[in-house]
Amino acid sequence: MSTVANPLLVENIDGVVTLTLNRPDQFNALSEALLDELQRALAAIAEDDSVRCVVLAGNGRAFCAGHDLKQMRANPDQRYYEQLFANCGRVMQSIVNLPVPVIAKVHGTATAAGCQLVASCDLAISADTAKFAVSGINVGLFCSTPAVALMRNVPAKKAFEMLITGQFISAQDAVDNGLINRAVAPDQLDAEVDALVQTICGKSPVAVRTGKAMYKRQLGMGLGDAYDYAGKVMAENMMAEDVAEGIDAFMQKRHPVWKGK
Amino acid sequence: MSTVANPLLVENIDGVVTLTLNRPDQFNALSEALLDELQRALAAIAEDDSVRCVVLAGNGRAFCAGHDLKQMRANPDQRYYEQLFANCGRVMQSIVNLPVPVIAKVHGTATAAGCQLVASCDLAISADTAKFAVSGINVGLFCSTPAVALMRNVPAKKAFEMLITGQFISAQDAVDNGLINRAVAPDQLDAEVDALVQTICGKSPVAVRTGKAMYKRQLGMGLGDAYDYAGKVMAENMMAEDVAEGIDAFMQKRHPVWKGK
Amino acid sequence: MSTVANPLLVENIDGVVTLTLNRPDQFNALSEALLDELQRALAAIAEDDSVRCVVLAGNGRAFCAGHDLKQMRANPDQRYYEQLFANCGRVMQSIVNLPVPVIAKVHGTATAAGCQLVASCDLAISADTAKFAVSGINVGLFCSTPAVALMRNVPAKKAFEMLITGQFISAQDAVDNGLINRAVAPDQLDAEVDALVQTICGKSPVAVRTGKAMYKRQLGMGLGDAYDYAGKVMAENMMAEDVAEGIDAFMQKRHPVWKGK
Repeated sequence: MSTVANPLLVENIDGVVTLTLNRPDQFNALSEALLDELQRALAAIAEDDSVRCVVLAGNGRAFCAGHDLKQMRANPDQRYYEQLFANCGRVMQSIVNLPVPVIAKVHGTATAAGCQLVASCDLAISADTAKFAVSGINVGLFCSTPAVALMRNVPAKKAFEMLITGQFISAQDAVDNGLINRAVAPDQLDAEVDALVQTICGKSPVAVRTGKAMYKRQLGMGLGDAYDYAGKVMAENMMAEDVAEGIDAFMQKRHPVWKGK
Repeated sequence: MSTVANPLLVENIDGVVTLTLNRPDQFNALSEALLDELQRALAAIAEDDSVRCVVLAGNGRAFCAGHDLKQMRANPDQRYYEQLFANCGRVMQSIVNLPVPVIAKVHGTATAAGCQLVASCDLAISADTAKFAVSGINVGLFCSTPAVALMRNVPAKKAFEMLITGQFISAQDAVDNGLINRAVAPDQLDAEVDALVQTICGKSPVAVRTGKAMYKRQLGMGLGDAYDYAGKVMAENMMAEDVAEGIDAFMQKRHPVWKGK
Repeated sequence: MSTVANPLLVENIDGVVTLTLNRPDQFNALSEALLDELQRALAAIAEDDSVRCVVLAGNGRAFCAGHDLKQMRANPDQRYYEQLFANCGRVMQSIVNLPVPVIAKVHGTATAAGCQLVASCDLAISADTAKFAVSGINVGLFCSTPAVALMRNVPAKKAFEMLITGQFISAQDAVDNGLINRAVAPDQLDAEVDALVQTICGKSPVAVRTGKAMYKRQLGMGLGDAYDYAGKVMAENMMAEDVAEGIDAFMQKRHPVWKGK
């Protein structure tokens, strides 16, 4: 079943790219090779104007178990670890900075850097049986880099509790605390993610790309700067042909036909 | 009923100013004229020491449908749009920076910049039948300026989902995600907002104005700077005659009589 | 019953320090003396490498009623107040900056700076009968310094509502809004806090101290800076003997034996 060599499967159907973590027997642990493949795939997507949306999924029982502890233990060198975490941080930021939305499709357990992947995506839907933890503390390694993503999604005390106890939270708890958008029955997960993908693909590509970029960039700004920036972005967005079409269609109570410019 | 010319009604009863968006047939869309009226009214309130509290309401079926798409479409000029969004951003920031609390009284649908108005207010109570969306994306225009206000109220993934799908959320969902304080039966909305207004008017005006100003100013500060600032503000607040009266009344188990200084 | 002189009780059992506010007849109001004792105790804990975890509790009916209004009223001097709030802010920041986690054990009412104490702790568990308010506004004194801590835990509109109305919220409301981690039946409070303490004491001290420090330091950073910092912290953490032991134990499906280095 798992004679597959490539740790990441990349499928592009009509501009919807599905990235599937494909180390099922290792619970999709983020080996060096898998991180490299993710970075390469994300870089390619960033250059491809035809991509509309990305789904990040996993093969096997788990969504992602985080870093590959066996590989890490085999390389007891601080410089090696610095490089490893720098590469991992680059992948996470590539998701954040990608020009199109990234949806985590979480069918199973997401732990440590696996939970960080979920937090780093723009949107996340999980099976209601999935569980989430930042569990590095259980092996003596505080989830420092996952904390960066987690605390930008989850309220302070909840995030700290997860990090310091390493305990699992349920999918419903993840919804209630902002880590994921919603949890559905496992046999509904495909349909629910597909519906969200189709919703996004039904929008003007100009608007979607404008939105993803501006949303992420204004996060750290003060209110005045954020409004100055957002106002300029929105004025530019207004000049797109798609907006003229969109408003006309709205006035005429018909569906818009996007040109993507 | 709606032959009214003025797009904004301003009523001041004993220092409680109600601003009522009054373009019911246009779902209170924020035309240039309405934005100008709002800015003028807010500027006047900012100068008036007798104002205690502001309520922002709407006439007709909707609370506010956002920008006036028809007017925007009629002015296909980037400079025009830049000015329009700058004016709109100024109104939103005038709410944030107003010396007294602003309560959104949301009886109906709030969309796009209408949802931004709700997010920009200090407090918000809605009818439980009200709905909320940042729906610009449906006409090809990502709600960039509404995003600035929204993401300062609502958790990241929820805010992004609203922005990228344009879908409505219910009043209860708005409560659960921090966009509004609470939702009540439509026939209770007046009473509930009045009760909140009366609670605020029962406080020392010095304390209320001190609080509104300091709360907004410390938002972007680091912890040390925020404490330095807040400590100075609080020490100055302590010197108000109202605090001496307030503490004495508390000790004597009687109601305080505020002097407002 | 309360002839006790020391306003703060300090107990260290096997590295778990319990700080108990001990002015039960004054609802544990934060007098100058109590703030001084808290600061002294926190400074000592910060220097003591054998401490694993701190519990902050209160004697008597209330958890903490905030500042000592009687003492404040007796010193009507702005410089005095500035010093008082600076001292208080120092205590709050000492909790935040302490090298080990601090758990608030809230058995009764927490108001004003008492609520700020809860917000400042890393974790908080309360009796489900406890209530929370930032009620200074009721005596004319907006809770400016408590606002700093509160708004870093609780969503914006909820925090402002609490501050401007001074009204109590229930323990369940405090859970739902991120002010505390959970609320339990009063007779379960001891057991629940003990269980959390034991969970933390079961982790590697290196990981716990690394985590507390990094979590707090990265809060204000932009995403890129936060990842650079967290990656370096995590690489250093990886070099600890405890991580080698932790990963080996994990692989061998046995409990780790921490060396604490």
